[in-house]
Amino acid sequence: MAISYDRIALIGLGLIAGSMALALKRAGYKGEITGYARTPETRAVAREIGLVDRVCDSAAEAVEDADLVVLCVPVGAMGAVAAEIAPALKSGATVSDVGSVKAAVVDAVAPHLPENIHFVPTHPMAGTEHSGPRAGFAELFDNRWCLIVPAAGSDADAVAAIEAMWQAMGANTEVMEVEHHDLLCAIVSHIPHLIAYTMVGVADDFSRVSEQEVIKFSAAGFRDFTRIAASDPTMWRDVFLNNKEATLEILGRFTEELFALQRAIRTGDGEQLFDYFTHTRAIRRGIIEAGQDTDAPDFGRAKVK
Amino acid sequence: MAISYDRIALIGLGLIAGSMALALKRAGYKGEITGYARTPETRAVAREIGLVDRVCDSAAEAVEDADLVVLCVPVGAMGAVAAEIAPALKSGATVSDVGSVKAAVVDAVAPHLPENIHFVPTHPMAGTEHSGPRAGFAELFDNRWCLIVPAAGSDADAVAAIEAMWQAMGANTEVMEVEHHDLLCAIVSHIPHLIAYTMVGVADDFSRVSEQEVIKFSAAGFRDFTRIAASDPTMWRDVFLNNKEATLEILGRFTEELFALQRAIRTGDGEQLFDYFTHTRAIRRGIIEAGQDTDAPDFGRAKVK
Repeated sequence: MAISYDRIALIGLGLIAGSMALALKRAGYKGEITGYARTPETRAVAREIGLVDRVCDSAAEAVEDADLVVLCVPVGAMGAVAAEIAPALKSGATVSDVGSVKAAVVDAVAPHLPENIHFVPTHPMAGTEHSGPRAGFAELFDNRWCLIVPAAGSDADAVAAIEAMWQAMGANTEVMEVEHHDLLCAIVSHIPHLIAYTMVGVADDFSRVSEQEVIKFSAAGFRDFTRIAASDPTMWRDVFLNNKEATLEILGRFTEELFALQRAIRTGDGEQLFDYFTHTRAIRRGIIEAGQDTDAPDFGRAKVK
Repeated sequence: MAISYDRIALIGLGLIAGSMALALKRAGYKGEITGYARTPETRAVAREIGLVDRVCDSAAEAVEDADLVVLCVPVGAMGAVAAEIAPALKSGATVSDVGSVKAAVVDAVAPHLPENIHFVPTHPMAGTEHSGPRAGFAELFDNRWCLIVPAAGSDADAVAAIEAMWQAMGANTEVMEVEHHDLLCAIVSHIPHLIAYTMVGVADDFSRVSEQEVIKFSAAGFRDFTRIAASDPTMWRDVFLNNKEATLEILGRFTEELFALQRAIRTGDGEQLFDYFTHTRAIRRGIIEAGQDTDAPDFGRAKVK
């Protein structure tokens, strides 16, 4: 069914919205894409590079007559934006968002929406360490997952239309429930990011080793950590503030596990360390077999200069 | 001065030794490379693929008349191998190793070596998630660091010769002291790996989310973790058993920091989270500017199918 909307409004013009606009054009989308960003600077850049067909000076203006409105703002800003656009929404329109947590977004957005609006949250699992209106690229969603997380009582046709649009932009889609989404994402994304931030911070303030040395000798392991610790601070702050329950639960398990390994190191229990490391290696093989990553022996190394 | 040894013996024929043999050949090395591995299976594979010029059936045979002997076995096996080869070493030969920790290796190896032997430990900071005699490739060390960590009283000419060989194999080299090496590597490599192992283990045993789901939806963050958690279990067990002091010290700092962030999440302190994440992002920029990684927006993504 391809893309069934005649007009699409993107609220917030950062990495995700920019990539959506470029991916929609690549998919041959013929309708109009409007856009709005909070700061005049971002709007000016978006106009300069022609990121969308029309950059508006208010969110209400951008959503006027739009068949689909996608909120691409940090999770913490979703509620206020929803309140702002609600009176200007076209009857029968679909509202969606691209936040990394879903229960908090549904709680913040749904109460503001009129009854004749379909609300279908989504979560494209793709990103880079860059942000802002110049960061987008059309290939960002290619072969990545976009989770479709319908709010209670979502219309089946509205869900199917969103799913078709994400597929047209290159993504694989899967529909899941709100609570399950938030726990799953805490495990596969949120906590790994928090740990990466922590490790980079620890490395930085070790006084007997200089920051220059840490940077100079950062090996693959540390570099992978810093890579994911360079993501947008506002987005990640809002993720943790808004997925508190799941992240705290998994952090508890993580520290429990880490203390067990720490104890094995302290007591010299090589067998426990070996068994643990063998187990995690097997999990990694599973990820390769599932086609989510390459097993090329120089993974990504070709790009490092 | 290029490579000044007439014969080089590689003891242990895994990823590093295999890559050294291939990198030496690529550098135009004309001398003989002998090799020995503990298991008959590894020796058979090495013979089959012609990994070195001559695969020997004992370590003593391999080191006979060698000007350079490189111990490429797990850190925990270094002492026993040194004892085994000591009587067969050529007078004036250099013994080196490629272990990821250095104080423990010096303690284990040095007492076995005769007085007329130069001992110059090294640490090539390169690896992949693969191991064994088929895992090596000539480009593994290109543009990576090889740390040269001379034992007390090392001969300056012997140090320079090793350094020249590693440069001929494509590596950048830097000479540093044993204790400093171990602390630095705990920060930039050992602890990041331990945390990656832990996170993968936690994700795997969360019962409300299936392993299939974790694998299917593993996003960039989690995938980076599993990538470094797939390294050789024996090697990493020995790293932690043999760099106990530094790893426990940094783990202490890590959990302290992680608890502070956990508390910020629990109390909803968005400002603290934002400041922390902004700080780590700046560190990441430093790593890009130091030329240790690429800032291409689709980092490594092109390879993922």
